[in-house]
Amino acid sequence: MSNDRGERYLEDLVPGQVYGGPSLTLDEAAIRTFASEWDNQPFHTDPVAATRSLFGGLAASGWHTAAATMKLLVAGDLRLAGGLIGGGLEQLSWPKPVRPGDTLTVQAEILEVRPSKSNPSRGVVRVRSTTLNQQGEAVQIMVSVMMVARRLVG
Amino acid sequence: MSNDRGERYLEDLVPGQVYGGPSLTLDEAAIRTFASEWDNQPFHTDPVAATRSLFGGLAASGWHTAAATMKLLVAGDLRLAGGLIGGGLEQLSWPKPVRPGDTLTVQAEILEVRPSKSNPSRGVVRVRSTTLNQQGEAVQIMVSVMMVARRLVG
Repeated sequence: MSNDRGERYLEDLVPGQVYGGPSLTLDEAAIRTFASEWDNQPFHTDPVAATRSLFGGLAASGWHTAAATMKLLVAGDLRLAGGLIGGGLEQLSWPKPVRPGDTLTVQAEILEVRPSKSNPSRGVVRVRSTTLNQQGEAVQIMVSVMMVARRLVG
Repeated sequence: MSNDRGERYLEDLVPGQVYGGPSLTLDEAAIRTFASEWDNQPFHTDPVAATRSLFGGLAASGWHTAAATMKLLVAGDLRLAGGLIGGGLEQLSWPKPVRPGDTLTVQAEILEVRPSKSNPSRGVVRVRSTTLNQQGEAVQIMVSVMMVARRLVG
């Protein structure tokens, strides 16, 4: 159900399929380093100040969780033909904070598969990517619409 | 309309207000470095391979644009009391690719201001953050719901 490089085409995708992949641990140093550059707020960079924040302790930036999720998707089993190219998201939420030492995995579930009306060579697929911590709790839920190539029929 | 540290409370925010901030240029090295770590796909890391992709040339990862947007919001004029804490996004889209050398700015528009029903010390604000390139074209549109502290009334 995939080509020589193991890539999946629109025709290989069916709603309900779930694709997994590797895991990634975010330790305290990684959380503070990412936040120092991109989301420099005390609850992401300073373990002491973080105890007095709404988070009650150091928490990863949601953008760190999102970037980690993309890394895990790219290294994971979804492997769409043409690459993982999202035109946009319908949902992105962070139901629980990511804490130092949390190990994340992503489960990508195919929600909908739709050929393009204007371009016979591709289509779009709606995917819900749920990022889980080592307790199996969702720390991020993302619903995205991605482009995917169709098989060329001779 | 703000406290000693220039932070804004729920009571300071009115729909229609637009807050700006500094700018950030994403050069080719920055685009390739970010993507190598978080979104390792040829159209974000390899200028030659990128010409054969849907992007037609090197483009920043959308997650790089999102992280840059957060950096510009944190350094910008919105300055919500308690920090910029988003519970989730209602929309995140990338209408145009970010190209090497593009200079980004963010305009954050207050859409809605709502006190919490359960917690008299805070509320939520819906914000549309539009990330623009140097031609004034939107490269990212994000609608987020952020928590914000209320003024304590004695």
